Amino acid sequence: MGVVPLALKASMDRVSAEVDQGFDRLLPVPGDSRARLFEAMRHAAIGGGKRLRPLLVRASADLFHVDRVPALRVGLAIEAIHVYSLIHDDLPCMDDDDVRRGRPTVHKAYDEATAVLAGDSLHAIAFEILADPETHPDPFVRCELLAELAKAAGPVGMAGGQMMDLMADGAAFDLAAVTRLQQLKTGALIGFCLEAGAILGHVPPEGRRAIRAYSRDLGLAFQIADDLLDVEGSAEVTGKAVGKDADAGKATFVSLLGVERARQQAEILVDQAIGHLAAHGTEATLLRSIARYVVERDR
Amino acid sequence: MGVVPLALKASMDRVSAEVDQGFDRLLPVPGDSRARLFEAMRHAAIGGGKRLRPLLVRASADLFHVDRVPALRVGLAIEAIHVYSLIHDDLPCMDDDDVRRGRPTVHKAYDEATAVLAGDSLHAIAFEILADPETHPDPFVRCELLAELAKAAGPVGMAGGQMMDLMADGAAFDLAAVTRLQQLKTGALIGFCLEAGAILGHVPPEGRRAIRAYSRDLGLAFQIADDLLDVEGSAEVTGKAVGKDADAGKATFVSLLGVERARQQAEILVDQAIGHLAAHGTEATLLRSIARYVVERDR
Repeated sequence: MGVVPLALKASMDRVSAEVDQGFDRLLPVPGDSRARLFEAMRHAAIGGGKRLRPLLVRASADLFHVDRVPALRVGLAIEAIHVYSLIHDDLPCMDDDDVRRGRPTVHKAYDEATAVLAGDSLHAIAFEILADPETHPDPFVRCELLAELAKAAGPVGMAGGQMMDLMADGAAFDLAAVTRLQQLKTGALIGFCLEAGAILGHVPPEGRRAIRAYSRDLGLAFQIADDLLDVEGSAEVTGKAVGKDADAGKATFVSLLGVERARQQAEILVDQAIGHLAAHGTEATLLRSIARYVVERDR
Repeated sequence: MGVVPLALKASMDRVSAEVDQGFDRLLPVPGDSRARLFEAMRHAAIGGGKRLRPLLVRASADLFHVDRVPALRVGLAIEAIHVYSLIHDDLPCMDDDDVRRGRPTVHKAYDEATAVLAGDSLHAIAFEILADPETHPDPFVRCELLAELAKAAGPVGMAGGQMMDLMADGAAFDLAAVTRLQQLKTGALIGFCLEAGAILGHVPPEGRRAIRAYSRDLGLAFQIADDLLDVEGSAEVTGKAVGKDADAGKATFVSLLGVERARQQAEILVDQAIGHLAAHGTEATLLRSIARYVVERDR
């Protein structure tokens, strides 16, 4: 990560610290036999990851002049969903990964049953956070957040994309199919991060066009960059096993386009994403920095 | 099931049919590679089970004069949570069950990865149902339902109870510990079924005392009856493997109290549960019938 600008680095560090503190408060270890469950959740949720999703919520909240606490709480809810999905995706019956964020995965550090329950628990906690009046005093806002997160996480979003990914093993997959898969698997949740700022800011649908266009381009650029990292990155940088997609014979943007065209495509998408923000001033600074960072992070 | 009164049987059949129709509408099979995911959800969610939880919501809704559609939608949300928990509990790394409701479990009929994702998908759909204005026009009501369901399903409720159950394998467990475990594992969700009628009916906390007292006694009676079924029932009646708890050396109400005292305790709890409804008239008929049915169902 040679080229993270200082201002972006400062925002990332602040959001990361706030997310860690938030999970620390949300997950106190009880004095009964559920201790192992809470320790497993803490293992997965605290002290790791780039916290890209809470950072995107913060950036979208900047654009719509939303306060710190609501944005942080929505960021925590989305990160809880993201972490639950990583715990379940790492299970032996899914991707069978031993290492995540440079540490043993939950089923390795604990056991499979605890990993299933830790994922399920974080899933429920995400909705508990959003339903709490602390997140936003307006129940219409809370219900819209809840409805959109449920869709983004479920079978018409992330879980559906994960199923497509399982079914794609070894199959002939073209660019349209890979794009559709990624729009569900990672794009739906990233889209919700950016939509959340607009929901928190009471922005009506016609005021959300720029952020939605940004969101589509960014989500795709992010996934292409992820595929590039899987081919070019080192396990040291990514904190997880690399080259797995290629080994599994999975179609990715890189296998379909080649490294050079995939990189060019990601850069075009980032330029487009930033272009959608042209009507905005400094309130879009963080969104612009994140878009640039997405394709630079593996260099 | 020798002694289900006709009126209760009619209510059970009506609720069962409505739940099946509801899931059929909520889970249309898409024309892409997610078809297998939706088929797995339909396999688990449609055409089986006693639908006790949606029936309890209906009974609580009767008490507080709540309409059919809101009660049915809340019942569907809770049943979606219940079904997801069965899918995950049946996994090889958890209880490793091959048969459920007389049919192969999801990981046997499909595979483990699909079972994990089908459970996760139903989990998300439960919250999507509650967040939808079709469930109730008042967003305060929807948020209260969402907050309470998230708590009842998560680590301070069902998932936490399941963890206690995993940790209890073979350990020395007394009556207080088994009671606490069951209050979380099954009691929290049953409690929410009954609370939901009050929430839908805008009933303030002071008007919920009778239903809460009923709920505590019923939940415990239900679990004792379940333990009795595990010892005395046949696989034909229960639709799942029996004698598993005893084989696993798990402490249950029956292993701690013996069959006769456990049955007496369940009957006392049912009488108590019905006693809490003394101030109510015919609007509590279904609640009374269900309480009696809970201890009679295995005879």
